[in-house]
Amino acid sequence: MAETGFTNMAGTAAAGSAPEIGIGMLGYAFMGKAHSNAFKKLPYMMYPPVALPKLVAIAGRNEAAVREAAARYGYASHYTDWRKMIQDDRVQLFDNGGPNDLHAEPCILAAQAGKSILCEKPLARSTAEAAAMLEAVTKAGVKHAVAFNYRFVPAIRLAKDLIADGKLGQIYHFRAVYLQEWIMPHYNTPHIWRLDKTVAGSGALGDLGSHIIDLGRYLVGEPRRVSAAVSTFIKARPGVGGKPQTVDVDDAFAATIEFQNGALGTLEATRYAGGHKNSNCLEINGEKGSIRFNLERMNELEVHWIGEEPQSTQGFHQVLVSEAHHPFWSNWWPHGHIIGWEHTFVHEIHHFLDAIVNNKPVGPHGATFEDGYRNAVICDAILQSADTGRRVDINY
Amino acid sequence: MAETGFTNMAGTAAAGSAPEIGIGMLGYAFMGKAHSNAFKKLPYMMYPPVALPKLVAIAGRNEAAVREAAARYGYASHYTDWRKMIQDDRVQLFDNGGPNDLHAEPCILAAQAGKSILCEKPLARSTAEAAAMLEAVTKAGVKHAVAFNYRFVPAIRLAKDLIADGKLGQIYHFRAVYLQEWIMPHYNTPHIWRLDKTVAGSGALGDLGSHIIDLGRYLVGEPRRVSAAVSTFIKARPGVGGKPQTVDVDDAFAATIEFQNGALGTLEATRYAGGHKNSNCLEINGEKGSIRFNLERMNELEVHWIGEEPQSTQGFHQVLVSEAHHPFWSNWWPHGHIIGWEHTFVHEIHHFLDAIVNNKPVGPHGATFEDGYRNAVICDAILQSADTGRRVDINY
Amino acid sequence: MAETGFTNMAGTAAAGSAPEIGIGMLGYAFMGKAHSNAFKKLPYMMYPPVALPKLVAIAGRNEAAVREAAARYGYASHYTDWRKMIQDDRVQLFDNGGPNDLHAEPCILAAQAGKSILCEKPLARSTAEAAAMLEAVTKAGVKHAVAFNYRFVPAIRLAKDLIADGKLGQIYHFRAVYLQEWIMPHYNTPHIWRLDKTVAGSGALGDLGSHIIDLGRYLVGEPRRVSAAVSTFIKARPGVGGKPQTVDVDDAFAATIEFQNGALGTLEATRYAGGHKNSNCLEINGEKGSIRFNLERMNELEVHWIGEEPQSTQGFHQVLVSEAHHPFWSNWWPHGHIIGWEHTFVHEIHHFLDAIVNNKPVGPHGATFEDGYRNAVICDAILQSADTGRRVDINY
Amino acid sequence: MAETGFTNMAGTAAAGSAPEIGIGMLGYAFMGKAHSNAFKKLPYMMYPPVALPKLVAIAGRNEAAVREAAARYGYASHYTDWRKMIQDDRVQLFDNGGPNDLHAEPCILAAQAGKSILCEKPLARSTAEAAAMLEAVTKAGVKHAVAFNYRFVPAIRLAKDLIADGKLGQIYHFRAVYLQEWIMPHYNTPHIWRLDKTVAGSGALGDLGSHIIDLGRYLVGEPRRVSAAVSTFIKARPGVGGKPQTVDVDDAFAATIEFQNGALGTLEATRYAGGHKNSNCLEINGEKGSIRFNLERMNELEVHWIGEEPQSTQGFHQVLVSEAHHPFWSNWWPHGHIIGWEHTFVHEIHHFLDAIVNNKPVGPHGATFEDGYRNAVICDAILQSADTGRRVDINY
Repeated sequence: MAETGFTNMAGTAAAGSAPEIGIGMLGYAFMGKAHSNAFKKLPYMMYPPVALPKLVAIAGRNEAAVREAAARYGYASHYTDWRKMIQDDRVQLFDNGGPNDLHAEPCILAAQAGKSILCEKPLARSTAEAAAMLEAVTKAGVKHAVAFNYRFVPAIRLAKDLIADGKLGQIYHFRAVYLQEWIMPHYNTPHIWRLDKTVAGSGALGDLGSHIIDLGRYLVGEPRRVSAAVSTFIKARPGVGGKPQTVDVDDAFAATIEFQNGALGTLEATRYAGGHKNSNCLEINGEKGSIRFNLERMNELEVHWIGEEPQSTQGFHQVLVSEAHHPFWSNWWPHGHIIGWEHTFVHEIHHFLDAIVNNKPVGPHGATFEDGYRNAVICDAILQSADTGRRVDINY
Repeated sequence: MAETGFTNMAGTAAAGSAPEIGIGMLGYAFMGKAHSNAFKKLPYMMYPPVALPKLVAIAGRNEAAVREAAARYGYASHYTDWRKMIQDDRVQLFDNGGPNDLHAEPCILAAQAGKSILCEKPLARSTAEAAAMLEAVTKAGVKHAVAFNYRFVPAIRLAKDLIADGKLGQIYHFRAVYLQEWIMPHYNTPHIWRLDKTVAGSGALGDLGSHIIDLGRYLVGEPRRVSAAVSTFIKARPGVGGKPQTVDVDDAFAATIEFQNGALGTLEATRYAGGHKNSNCLEINGEKGSIRFNLERMNELEVHWIGEEPQSTQGFHQVLVSEAHHPFWSNWWPHGHIIGWEHTFVHEIHHFLDAIVNNKPVGPHGATFEDGYRNAVICDAILQSADTGRRVDINY
Repeated sequence: MAETGFTNMAGTAAAGSAPEIGIGMLGYAFMGKAHSNAFKKLPYMMYPPVALPKLVAIAGRNEAAVREAAARYGYASHYTDWRKMIQDDRVQLFDNGGPNDLHAEPCILAAQAGKSILCEKPLARSTAEAAAMLEAVTKAGVKHAVAFNYRFVPAIRLAKDLIADGKLGQIYHFRAVYLQEWIMPHYNTPHIWRLDKTVAGSGALGDLGSHIIDLGRYLVGEPRRVSAAVSTFIKARPGVGGKPQTVDVDDAFAATIEFQNGALGTLEATRYAGGHKNSNCLEINGEKGSIRFNLERMNELEVHWIGEEPQSTQGFHQVLVSEAHHPFWSNWWPHGHIIGWEHTFVHEIHHFLDAIVNNKPVGPHGATFEDGYRNAVICDAILQSADTGRRVDINY
Repeated sequence: MAETGFTNMAGTAAAGSAPEIGIGMLGYAFMGKAHSNAFKKLPYMMYPPVALPKLVAIAGRNEAAVREAAARYGYASHYTDWRKMIQDDRVQLFDNGGPNDLHAEPCILAAQAGKSILCEKPLARSTAEAAAMLEAVTKAGVKHAVAFNYRFVPAIRLAKDLIADGKLGQIYHFRAVYLQEWIMPHYNTPHIWRLDKTVAGSGALGDLGSHIIDLGRYLVGEPRRVSAAVSTFIKARPGVGGKPQTVDVDDAFAATIEFQNGALGTLEATRYAGGHKNSNCLEINGEKGSIRFNLERMNELEVHWIGEEPQSTQGFHQVLVSEAHHPFWSNWWPHGHIIGWEHTFVHEIHHFLDAIVNNKPVGPHGATFEDGYRNAVICDAILQSADTGRRVDINY
């Protein structure tokens, strides 16, 4: 059978040597779509593939919707009870694209069932929950990853490589914002799950802030302490039946962050930045250079070198990160034929499959549950600082 | 059988109602890859699909390479003789992604065999060749399209819609450049087929210039006359065995263009613009507004309105064309999660399949062989003007 | 006599009606130069002038240097003792462009001598000092201004007007950075006065941070509380004779800021941002729109409107603030012939002369000593928060 | 007496050694204002000055207006008959800022009177007129310059230096546009002198095109031949009394240009590019690098180097040309405190005074009447090509 359509590649040495990995997907919405697309695209674009994702099953509450998703993406079967999917022997990789309150329990049970696990971010709604999840995967000895997919943007990986090579020298500053606008008044957004603390854990912080916290840790290092403020601009929104329901998560947060290596930074995430559709922007200033990135122009990295170039023409370079020699680019297109947001998942899942099949570590380039846990610690510290008005030390 | 992996979608009403179309692909290099990716992606992303591409066969001269391509992309079979593929009854849509000297004959034979035809640009190496191709498809009554895929960039379609709605008023100016760098001295490019007039017809003109000529016709209208200059900076390059071989095509051209509606413009394409990987940039100035576009930032359109806004804050808008209400975007991702170059082919092929299945016209949004022919007339006029030093009228 | 060269304008009605104001300038370095240029340029560019600056005297410690400055800029006389200049009856406006530790005493004495006073920013080294200065000018009833000249950038004034007109609605966010690089290691900067707490009061905070704090108050409103972190990356630098001398001021600070109107923000200033020569960048997000500004492109303002424009082409406008109808522009040049940094002083001093001559208030568009004092309170709160790790309320 | 206000500088060695040069200015409008500002600013900003401009007289037809201009800028006297001003013995430098039909005769008479001459661009309305002017200054042996002031933008001079140093290698391409919008329909511009061939000679071509032609010659070299098209979008406009008057100059032109060194280019100027206030943009692509410039961001130069930098971070540098080591910058402000359009005249006039006082050549960095003449030849060739539809060789 050929759910993924690659059975006929078996005849070639390259693809034929790639083992199949059975995928069980939880969630068919935004992330289910993004991950499914990556599973389907990976075998022929990251070629020869390290593994062939076999789309075994997809799970979701709504029977009609999950059935259509299965048909659309080519999953061999579907479940309305994710517990049963986790028990499905054909599933080797459990991909958790469900809402935040469906991260911990399914992942823990999947770990106990010996599945490799890819979980969407934020890993958990709280430090405690994340700790339990980390404990479960560690105990079970399974491969685990958190979908901090922006580590797999070519420009971000290039930034990481430059920093790791010492090209920026000592890091002085990290400033990162993640700005969106989709719950501003003119959108008339109702009280969705992302605005409910019980389901989401936090608001802009966990959804957007967790990404820039992860990038800060990935690119600069471990934080030492944070101080923060949060705000909720619209305190209640129409729930089911139109009845006003309290918004008990942050609409926005702002924080100062001090890193163990002495770097000083700011973090901010908001869903009230009109004109910003998906602006995950960061800048790092170091002793020998600076870099800048904006997710809305994710094929570009701006780089400024100090002292490496003639003085009169120094300035930020607009690097189009789309050459075969750039990270992840050997599989894509010729010079300057840019890729999109969805491609980060192809890179990420390919990386994770490689870790599984060839027993390689997921880190440091992939984010593990350890990264997910540390991220949760920092998120909680930010909330605590905002609540108490005191700077909070980061202790994992 | 399930080459495309969608057999299991047959059970759903939506996809189940979509007819299969057998694809025969000529070429497995850059364009073969881009088109194959689109065929595979279309069924689950442009959902529900208007048709299900069934990857019947792929043809290419090198047996090992074409066999691997078939395996990689899931084509059921492969041919080293494209003539046989054209005769394959399972093939309903002939996709010609071969080099320019393999456009005319295969397309004409495919037309005679009653296939729908999608041909890469430029349609032909000359006006005469294009005319014969147009005649063949017209006579055969088959559906035909030329892969001027930039018509299917959301930002370009948005521009087209704005102009068609009269939002720019009378058009005064069109200025377009297509700048690349990949045969500059530091690339040490040998004498490839694109530098050989017999194979390619022309150089930067047919390869890059044809795109901006098409966009000019699509967005502004028919040209009235052109004057031009061409240049070949490196006159010979190492051929097979390292022996210098004459470059007999243009490395670059520049032209003035006057449109029938009175608009005045410039066109330029070159492969010697260092720092430009894939800069297809255009600007249109009209009575009521202006628009700007750069393919390297293809998710953006810059728009300037005159008189529609308070005077004090007028200026070019940086529109991120990535909302569900934007052209082609309903199938992609939430706000600001950008798409890449390859997505234009998904849009284009979806459009062509819709034309085939539902017997709709390919134009005016899709480019037909008529567009390909007119494009060839303009290219030839540019070469003639450069050769004679005289302005040349455009007569189709 | 004609130090300013305008005696011969006396014959015209327009300039002839403008009273002369005697200027006494303290400082002949960067700020002395910038202010002197403005005094000289004002009469013929802000035409007809509200007043004619008569360059009476300039004061500085170095006799040779101050004499040359007097000759260069056309001051009628020079002093090496500023106390004497303050007593000079010809001086009506005392312009204090000296280092921070020469702000308080001269300004207080000048106030007591009944002079109008323009003082460079930051007003003082501490809240206490600023309070004494404010008290002195208030008691003396003299006109007073602090040279927060960025209020007089046309784009900033346009932003102010838009906000004041309610065009942004409720303000959600203010994020501002002031980034420079001129004491990074590769500059080999010695231990100058700006790195000495006794002279400067603070480092990047007072020098750069005070500007963005002022813009925050001017554009968004009064802050409610702040939390902050500071850093000094290079702890000692060569002093006189090359002996290492401790740097006891901040090289950089980062802060969260909450405003009384509910807006949430971040502030950051640093002298360690490689590639940034003079990047004073701010963004404000409101319910109905957003604005962005970068001092390095000070002729531009980016504006995003929500709901005022067709949905499909919304986006940040790049407004070139260089039209006759823009703030301060009626005196300059035709469309798009941009002005520079120095022009802000022409606007500022013209505004202050108007306040003096026509007995108008300096605020709200000009910054007064009250603004300077409040700025000092906020700066001290930032230092206190960084020191204690606690959020600090702002109480004037 | 002290029209310029620098009499009291006589006591200092530096300024004291600078000779005075009597200025006679023709025209008090846009250019009169810009030049007068430069004369006044030069002595204290380009310090120590090479010469002290003594503002002797200003001439214009309207007695009231020219009297006010004299008062405003500090000219010692005014004339309504420029012939008399030219005969004024106090005038050593004749600055012609009048309309185009007042360039030839006054300049020729001034040359015969032995004056140094600075004339606004375009030098003349035709090749013949320019030839006569060049002959006159040559015969008279006076210093002469044409105010192609964009040569004195620091970024342009930096570009020139880079090219002269061979940093770009062989030049392949020059593309330049000069885009404005101020006679588009929504401006309701009447029939002004710039739209009258008798007065202006040509339209956008002479006004804007002459600037980019000059920059092409300055940066790339002499052209070999051109082909062109012109257009007049609005054929008649209200003249005096509202009566429609024919517009007999070009609103826009577009041209291809081939240089003697093999470079290929395009030129375009228009007054119908909505959203462009003053966009003089150019790009040069060479074997070893590329540069880009936009007058609306005149403090910046974009530079791309090939092969000089690590491959992975190559890209266009955004160079902020505002450092003390940059051309003309030693006299201005610290890092990143940008200058404006008017500063180009300070540089230009300083350069010309230096040529006069120290008997240096005006070229190659300053434009001479020879440059003005060659510019006229090229402008005429463009009009001829547009008229005949034939490519025209450039022969001086």
